[in-house]
Parts: sequence; structure tokens; C-alpha cells
Amino acid sequence: MYTHSVTYRVCYADTDQMGYMYYGNYARLYEIARVEMLRSLGISYKSLEDKGIGLPVYDNYSKFYAPALYDDVLTIKCIIDQLPSVRIIFNYHIVNQDNKLINEGKTTLVFMNLNDKKIIRVPEEILKALTIVFK
Amino acid sequence: MYTHSVTYRVCYADTDQMGYMYYGNYARLYEIARVEMLRSLGISYKSLEDKGIGLPVYDNYSKFYAPALYDDVLTIKCIIDQLPSVRIIFNYHIVNQDNKLINEGKTTLVFMNLNDKKIIRVPEEILKALTIVFK
Amino acid sequence: MYTHSVTYRVCYADTDQMGYMYYGNYARLYEIARVEMLRSLGISYKSLEDKGIGLPVYDNYSKFYAPALYDDVLTIKCIIDQLPSVRIIFNYHIVNQDNKLINEGKTTLVFMNLNDKKIIRVPEEILKALTIVFK
Amino acid sequence: MYTHSVTYRVCYADTDQMGYMYYGNYARLYEIARVEMLRSLGISYKSLEDKGIGLPVYDNYSKFYAPALYDDVLTIKCIIDQLPSVRIIFNYHIVNQDNKLINEGKTTLVFMNLNDKKIIRVPEEILKALTIVFK
Repeated sequence: MYTHSVTYRVCYADTDQMGYMYYGNYARLYEIARVEMLRSLGISYKSLEDKGIGLPVYDNYSKFYAPALYDDVLTIKCIIDQLPSVRIIFNYHIVNQDNKLINEGKTTLVFMNLNDKKIIRVPEEILKALTIVFK
Repeated sequence: MYTHSVTYRVCYADTDQMGYMYYGNYARLYEIARVEMLRSLGISYKSLEDKGIGLPVYDNYSKFYAPALYDDVLTIKCIIDQLPSVRIIFNYHIVNQDNKLINEGKTTLVFMNLNDKKIIRVPEEILKALTIVFK
Repeated sequence: MYTHSVTYRVCYADTDQMGYMYYGNYARLYEIARVEMLRSLGISYKSLEDKGIGLPVYDNYSKFYAPALYDDVLTIKCIIDQLPSVRIIFNYHIVNQDNKLINEGKTTLVFMNLNDKKIIRVPEEILKALTIVFK
Repeated sequence: MYTHSVTYRVCYADTDQMGYMYYGNYARLYEIARVEMLRSLGISYKSLEDKGIGLPVYDNYSKFYAPALYDDVLTIKCIIDQLPSVRIIFNYHIVNQDNKLINEGKTTLVFMNLNDKKIIRVPEEILKALTIVFK
């Protein structure tokens, strides 16, 4: 298992007229959490794309326990609990500044050769970096 | 079962640098599909809120089969296959202009009294309208 | 002068916690209005990009007279009042279902060769199509 | 004059298929910059709303000099160069990690009593805080 956390302050653009963070905007939180997790492993998603490897989303699940409100400071814990092969699965656990659980999520992404749009196996550099930190 | 379809043209705002509709933007498609389904039943979500009833999202799932590309004209079929009680479940099936399946999704929402933020049972008008059309 | 109108229903994703359409979301309305104006002239923005021509935004101005509210049906009138040369200027005039003016805007875009990222003059097909309808 | 800067990393959600940050997403950058400027003065926008004071946008202008690209780390300098009365004007100056100017913007907001939706004069606490730091 490997975990990495980021914080995020809910802005007005994120809210809807119910005063809640709009449910579609959690995708942005998840994205930031997994990209920063990769960066913590020495892997830049931007560099992956520059090398011709993309990670399109295969599926995504979100469960909403409590609303994220304007100006809340959220902590998004990103968790990988299995080594990737043709897919990589990121789990998320989001709490607000009162440590209240507000959301859990899970995204599966695949590895794609951006030139021929073919699905490929996990790049060696990701597998290696994860193997080192895995417990 | 009750189904209702809407069409949606993918705009530039929806795309990301992979040239795909960003995965978080499907939430907007789902929202439009279920609000228009309710309207087809004679129910205005806006009027529900005016009466003090909101429908916060409880969970959401999306599966991505193929990308939605810029200027694609998508058809989002919204399906209710069980009568709601304390929750209402909307399923979605999205195809592009070539009738290619690109996405399936499912959202569970709860009914909430907007004044005291308490969860309530399905409003009578929704249950009644759905019962009439259900097959 | 050439004008073309589209309608747009404000969705929940567009609103913020003040109950207004978030000011950044008008960019999407403007985009839809100008792309559909081009389509009304027989020009597909997607085809332009396929031919290697893009239209990045040079500047954008918005003035807010009244809020766009959830479920409002807006009419966005798009106006070109001068033939383009190296730039093309779109003006917008947005009213709601009560014909109340809520927003005016103006976007200047340039024409760019997507391969070398160089600014170019207006493509012949756009100039021709506009010249025919101009009054 | 009073200035305050924030940094922002461009995420995938911000990009469009040209590989640029979508022009409508700068509104979010501007919002974060001005809210954090207020916070640097000891003023919480959230608290203002809790006291019944909102700041709807009156107009907004953006000029695009160069694209913001995926994973760029932007510095948004927010500038107030005149004391507010019935309006408050925020100017923005955005550079990327290479100190290249990519965008300038300007937003005018008004002060509104959220209960009766009437325009009011600048709240004393904002005027006072700004007067102290103004040069």
C-alpha cells in the first residue's frame, strides 16, 4: 500500500446553488491527488505524456457522505493498494478541516500509447517506483 | 422501467488536452439527462427546490468505453428501472452520432428537506408520475 | 452585420452558492454561440482544426446586468459587425425567458496555423461566407 | 496600491484540446487570487457572506498573451490600485514558471446586501484594512 495526501480549498467556482461542491468537481480533486502522488514517486504525468504514454480513465466511483462547503480546506488522501499491471487503481478518502469524512472515491485508469491509441502494460518506471515504496 | 433521451453536443469547454471530454464533465450530462427525464414526467426540479425539496447526490459511477470527442453529438438515454423510496437511481447509456456506446453511468440521489437538511421519503408527485409510466 | 441566436438552459453545474450562474461559465455560452454562428454560415470549427487552423482567444470581456438563474432559458444573440482580417470579433447579447438583458460580452480571436503556431490571416472560406451575409 | 500573489498549478481539468488552459477557467484563477488577497488583509469572503454581504461580479476582462499549459505553475499577482467605494476593482497579472507574462485581467465587483439584493457601499472593514496597507 502507498498513500499520499494533498490539501485543497473549495472555491466559489466549485459550489452549486445548494451551497455544496458540485458532484462533478470531485473529479478535479481526484486528478490533483493522483498526479501529486505520482510526483511524490518521482514521476511526472506531463513527462509520461511527452514520452507518448497517456492514462485515460476507465471507470470512476464516488460516494458522498457529507457536503464540501465553500472555503472548506479538504485533505484528499490517495491510496494505491495493489501494484498496477494493465490498469492502475487510485482510491481516495476526503476529509474536511474538522476531520469529517465527506467523500470516498476510486478511479481506474489504463495505460495507452498516445500514438496508436493502443492499451499497453504499466510503464517500467511506475512499477519500479511503486514496488520500492509498497508495504 | 422508464426511459428518456436527450442529445448534447460536446463543446470545447468539455475537452481536455488528450482531445477527450474530461471525465468530470460527464456529471453535467447525467444531470441534464435526469432533469429532462423528470420534466418529461411533468416534474420540474426547480419547482421541487422551491417547495423545499432537494436531491443531493449519494453516489455516482461512470464507465468509459470510448472517448467523447469535440463536436460529437451524444445521445444520453436515462433509465429508471425501479420505483424510488428513500433513494432514486438513474442509469445512463451514452452513444455518439455513430451509435457507438461511449459511456454508462449510474447516480443515486436522496430526497432532502432543504430547511432542516433531513432525509425524507420520495415526494408523492414523483412516485405517482413514475408509477403511471412504469412498465 | 450578421447575427445568429442560440438558446441555452442553465443547469445546476453552472450555478454557484449565490444561486447565480458562475461568471466563468459564460465563456461556455459565448463559445457555443459563436460555433453555432459559424455553423449557420456553413463553417464547422471542427473542420477548421482538421485543416490545421485554430482560433485561440485574444481577449474577452463580459458585463453582468442581472444573474442567470438555475433552469433559466437564455437566448444568446451572437453578432459580428465587422469583417475579420487577422482577428475576428464576436459580440454577445444574452436575455432570459422574460426577455430581460442579463449579460453582454465580446470576444476577439485570432487565426492560428496549428502546426507552427503562427498567426495567419482570416481563412478565405470564413471571409467569403461572411461577405455574402453582411449587411 | 496593494498587491498579493498566489501560485496555481494547471491541471488536466483546466486544459482543452488545443492543449491550452480554456479561457473560461481563468475566472477561477482570478477568484482564488482576490479571495486570498482579502484573506491577507484579515478578511474572509466566507465571513462576509455569513454577515449577509456578497460581491457579485459586475464586469470582467481578460487578455491572453500566451497559453497556460498543463502542469505549468502560474503566479497570479492581484493588484488593487484604487480604494473601493460602491465597486471594488481587482487587476491580475499572470506569469508562468519561466516568468513569461501569459495573461492580464480585471474584475469589477459590487457590494450587495444578500437579504434584499440591494447594492451597498464598501463594508467598513474592507475599506479600513485597505487604507492601512495602501501606498
